[in-house]
Amino acid sequence: MTKTLVIIAHPDMARSRVNAAWAEALRRAGDITLRDLSALYPDGMIDGAVERSLLEAHDRIILQFPLTWYSCPPILSAWQIAILTRGWAYGPGGRALRLKTLGVALSTGSNGRDYQPDGRYGRTLEDVTVPFELMARHTGMHYLPPFTLTGVRECDDAAVAASARAYLDHVRTAKPRILASGRDDDRARTVYPLEAGAR
Amino acid sequence: MTKTLVIIAHPDMARSRVNAAWAEALRRAGDITLRDLSALYPDGMIDGAVERSLLEAHDRIILQFPLTWYSCPPILSAWQIAILTRGWAYGPGGRALRLKTLGVALSTGSNGRDYQPDGRYGRTLEDVTVPFELMARHTGMHYLPPFTLTGVRECDDAAVAASARAYLDHVRTAKPRILASGRDDDRARTVYPLEAGAR
Repeated sequence: MTKTLVIIAHPDMARSRVNAAWAEALRRAGDITLRDLSALYPDGMIDGAVERSLLEAHDRIILQFPLTWYSCPPILSAWQIAILTRGWAYGPGGRALRLKTLGVALSTGSNGRDYQPDGRYGRTLEDVTVPFELMARHTGMHYLPPFTLTGVRECDDAAVAASARAYLDHVRTAKPRILASGRDDDRARTVYPLEAGAR
Repeated sequence: MTKTLVIIAHPDMARSRVNAAWAEALRRAGDITLRDLSALYPDGMIDGAVERSLLEAHDRIILQFPLTWYSCPPILSAWQIAILTRGWAYGPGGRALRLKTLGVALSTGSNGRDYQPDGRYGRTLEDVTVPFELMARHTGMHYLPPFTLTGVRECDDAAVAASARAYLDHVRTAKPRILASGRDDDRARTVYPLEAGAR
């Protein structure tokens, strides 16, 4: 059975609405491992060995966060730096994450229409999350389409609850948008984006 | 005269080669203000009031860092969170950065050919730095094309020295790729990318 790990990076889950509802939906499902980085590491010092063991024990990894200046909160960057070491995640012998699946799930304050080619930002949320797509490519992981909820301040409770249900479904069933080749030489690795209709 | 502020986010400038050479070229120029965030804030706690005053006193802001998992080091995210407050940088009354100029300058370990549409990553460094482009759009700033040095491990000393000279020239003279409209209502703001030939 696929084992799923969700890494939550939120500065204050106790005051969160969307990310807390998402986490609660996953927790109730019972078979998904959740890690709330800010609760586990209040000083921001990530235990790389512990986190790497968890990644090794799971097949499907979701990084969940509120979009923060169009990027992830600093604690998730610190997590990446602590765990994605050469010889483990990439480079010679670095095969620990190969052919596992990576995805991001994020909430935004700005409205979804802002994130359109002809919108206020002129860029989409797929564009904004390119750094995570490249993390997947560099470590030989399959990469899911981003799961998103935009305009969170304007969402009523029903919309948040619906997104939590959709999130659980996404975490369980979403298919990769980019498939890793599984080749050892990551310089030579090629990736195969699925056509849009296959998402 | 244009006043330029360069914010450096590097985990260990004492061991840096490229970012240290870039900083030294700017320092020698004499008229550019440099802030080394890790040296100033070893605990990562940014003094937002001090940093905001500095931004107010300068016209041209460059964010300099080694690309870290295709993003900026965590201390630069912390800087963004500390300074880019509602009512100052954006939102009602948030006009402090309007019509100033923002740019990023970054070094990468991966080779430049990896960052091509048909390269290993399938994405360019302009794609990777979209979060900073959107920071500029959200705060009403003009946005420069990124200044980059790729494949830093394969660069000899002459290449590093040449890039430092080019960097100083870029910091002084590069023209915005995206122009802010200067309109107060940032929901209505439109941006005007220059055609490629005008870069």
